[in-house]
Order: sequence, then C-alpha cells, then structure tokens
Amino acid sequence: MTTSAKPIEVRGRRLSAQDHPIVCTPLTGRSLNALRAELATIIPKAPDLLEWRLDFFNDIADTGLVLAAAALVRDLAGSVPVILTRRSIQEGGEPIPLDENQVVELLAVLCASGHIDLVDYELCQPQQHRRRMRAVSQAHGVALIASYHDFHRTPSTAAMLDILVRAERDGADVAKLAVMPQVPGDVLHLLEAGLLASTVLRIPLITMSMGALGAISRVCGVRYGSSVTFAAGARASAPGQMSIEALRAAMAALDGARPFLGHG
Amino acid sequence: MTTSAKPIEVRGRRLSAQDHPIVCTPLTGRSLNALRAELATIIPKAPDLLEWRLDFFNDIADTGLVLAAAALVRDLAGSVPVILTRRSIQEGGEPIPLDENQVVELLAVLCASGHIDLVDYELCQPQQHRRRMRAVSQAHGVALIASYHDFHRTPSTAAMLDILVRAERDGADVAKLAVMPQVPGDVLHLLEAGLLASTVLRIPLITMSMGALGAISRVCGVRYGSSVTFAAGARASAPGQMSIEALRAAMAALDGARPFLGHG
Repeated sequence: MTTSAKPIEVRGRRLSAQDHPIVCTPLTGRSLNALRAELATIIPKAPDLLEWRLDFFNDIADTGLVLAAAALVRDLAGSVPVILTRRSIQEGGEPIPLDENQVVELLAVLCASGHIDLVDYELCQPQQHRRRMRAVSQAHGVALIASYHDFHRTPSTAAMLDILVRAERDGADVAKLAVMPQVPGDVLHLLEAGLLASTVLRIPLITMSMGALGAISRVCGVRYGSSVTFAAGARASAPGQMSIEALRAAMAALDGARPFLGHG
Repeated sequence: MTTSAKPIEVRGRRLSAQDHPIVCTPLTGRSLNALRAELATIIPKAPDLLEWRLDFFNDIADTGLVLAAAALVRDLAGSVPVILTRRSIQEGGEPIPLDENQVVELLAVLCASGHIDLVDYELCQPQQHRRRMRAVSQAHGVALIASYHDFHRTPSTAAMLDILVRAERDGADVAKLAVMPQVPGDVLHLLEAGLLASTVLRIPLITMSMGALGAISRVCGVRYGSSVTFAAGARASAPGQMSIEALRAAMAALDGARPFLGHG
C-alpha cells in the first residue's frame, strides 16, 4: 500500500502505520466500574491504542480517584499504549467542573504517574498552558499530541495545512486535526491537506473528516498521511466513528481490491 | 446520504442511485457454456445491472453465435438490465478479430435484437462510428454510454471534467470515466472531477479510480456523482474491482458510521 503515514513513537516503541492505520479506541466510562466494564469489552477486540477521555469521568475533580482510574486503565490495557485526553466543550468534549489551570495541573500529575503514554492537548488553549504541557510531557517521556477539532465545518485546505504546521512548530510529537464536512468536497479537502502536511512535516499526523460523509476518511486516511484512525470498541466518542468490527470489515474489503484477473 | 448521483433510465425504468450506487457486475465468459455458468453464479448475488463484455467472447466473429449468446444472457438475466460492451484493446479490452466497421455493425445488430438495454461505446472511436452508434441505439430504445478509460494515469481535474462534458455533447445518455491513479492525490482529483461534472451535466455519470489505490472510489463514488459501481460476481474485469460481497461489506460498514452517542 502507498502510505505517507509516519510511525508513532511511544516510550521507545514504534507503532507502525504501514499497511493499515493504527486503530485507536476511546474509553468513555464515567466511573471506575464503567471503565472496568468498557475495558473488558474493548481489550479482546485488540485495538492498537486506547484514548482515555478524562472529560467523561464523573470524579474528575478528585485527583485521588482520577489516579486510581489511570492505574486501572494502565493495568487492564496491558501492553496497549494509552492516550490521555481532556476534550474541552468548545472542541466537542463533556462539561467538567475544573478551570483550565486545574486541568493542566491534573494532566501534569497524570503525566508523572507513569500510567499514560501520550497526552492530547488542544492547540486552541492559551500558550502558557501549551508550553507547560510540552515541558511536563517531555519530562516524563509522554508523547504530546497537539489537537484541533471543528465539529461544525471544514476549513480551507490551506487553513488546515496551517493548523498542522502550527502543531509541529509548537513542539508537538503528533498533530491531530478532526473536522466536520458540510459537503462531499470537504472530505476531499481534508484528505488533500493531510497529504500536503505529511510531505512537509516531520511528525506523524492524525487527521479525519467526521460524520457519515467523512467516514470514508477513517478507512483510507492512512494513504493520505494519517497514522491513526479512531474506532469505537464499546461506544463512539465522535460522529462518524465506526465500530472496530465495521472499520476492519471495510479495510478488509478494500484489501480485496488488489488482484486483477482481467487478462488472465 | 448526500448524493449528486442521478438515476439511470433504462427502457422507461429508473435505476436509482439514491442511498447506494447501482451495482454492475461484468460477464466475461468466453463461450455460451461459460456465460451460462457465470450467470448461474452471479444472478443469485442480485446485481442491479450486468455488463456483458463482448470482447471476451471467443466467437465474436460469428454473428449467429453472438445473437445466441445475447439471447442466453437476456434469458438468464431475468429483469436485470444488460449493458453491452465491446472494450477495445487500447482501453483495456481483449484482442478480437473484427475491425471497427465490423464491430459497429455487430453492435447495431445487437441493439436491434431486443436483448440488451444499454450499449457502451468509446469516446476515442472515430466520429462517424459514434454517430452511427447514437442513431442505432436511439432507434431501438437502447441507452448509450459514452466511455473513456485510461489504465495508466489520471488526467488533470479539468481534463476529466472536459471528457465528461464531451460525452454529453456527443449525445450520450450516460458518461463513463475510469482512470488509473499513480499517487493517492489522483483519487481525490477523480472524485473532485465527478463532483464538478455532476453539477454541470444533466446526464448520469459513472466514474471510478482504478487499482488498489482507487478502490475507495468504488465505495464512496455515489457521493461524488457516480451512479454505478462495478463489482465482480465471478471474476474481475478491471483492476481494483472488488467482489460484490466485499463491496457490500464496505458499504455496510460505512453505513454503520452514522450514530453518534458521544453526548448521550
């Protein structure tokens, strides 16, 4: 397969996106018990990565319980690397009772805990917080994903390329861009921007066009520079996310497209 | 689903490409017996259209046998409409012992036979032959598909749009464009050209990007103006053609991408 998707380095291990994208499955449990049940469902489906969505966790204001949840996720995830993500409301996340200073302190504690491998922090957050997340994640060997989400529209190809370039300039280890198409052409523009960015940037990318219209980008994105695709193990965390089973079925169907017996 | 793909009119029936593309399966049998066996395999898979590839038929020079084959295909196809296609060598077809005048006479006899519903004729053929095919097909109520194939490369978006516009100006009822991508961006350009053409043209389109790289266009093409997708029932007739089963699996997987329970 032709791919411009780069491998992702996680604590010295390389997650390769050569033939297929790295499949990442979100954890959206609201309690320790819910996370335990979710992991029991998801781990047998063998995702390559897990994304723990901290904004779904009810007791996010109790650092002790958050650390207990992180230890639980780490334990049950086994060798599967874990992304820690607090998605803000403005980028599609759940409401939480913490201000941004408290969020950054909590993420810093979790980076130091040894329980997580990558941390997602949004490009739209203030520069002092982004700098702190860069320093803290680096100090603890945690890879930093700089992310940008637009749940309403798809920026121009140039604007999307610019967002990905800014993520690299910001010092991120991985740049993530998720946008919503309004018309079919928007999906093409996201894929084009990913292709351009994968040529000019050194860091791996995670790009996707959301919703039903963009779902195709979750299947073919690896050919357009995207190293990771998100698929639901138990429940979707974003519009257009397929189940792991459906994603693998679509990828297998396309893999079957190779042989040509026309002149045989 | 957002689709700009138009329905195809076949002898007063409308084949709709609303939710899903019209699935067309090629027949490549070299003899009456081979065609009979092929149809026995394919018809239970319920394709929406059949494309009888006349250039594969060993006895193409024997008009009596060709008419017998056409009657057999018509009989076993039941209510499934049949496209008659002689693909030339320069556009990816099989070698045949007829010159272009003989081909056109044979296609004319078959249009008059009542056994076929659509006829494919290439845009690259001389104008006098294209005119004759337009007149003969119209006289017998057979829909004319003007086709263009490039098995080596993908023209520019503008050049592809121009090909589709020329097909309509030529009087075709359907315009078909199949091109080979060399890089992932070529697939985006084919889809973009289809989207543009579906906006400016009144006739339905059949567009595809071939090979493994282009296979995704066979799944999502209906959103980019293409009314028909080709899938193999017994054996592929072009590179990148999936089996009917694989195509349907991929379409079903993408259909599963709709629900979003993220804030539930």
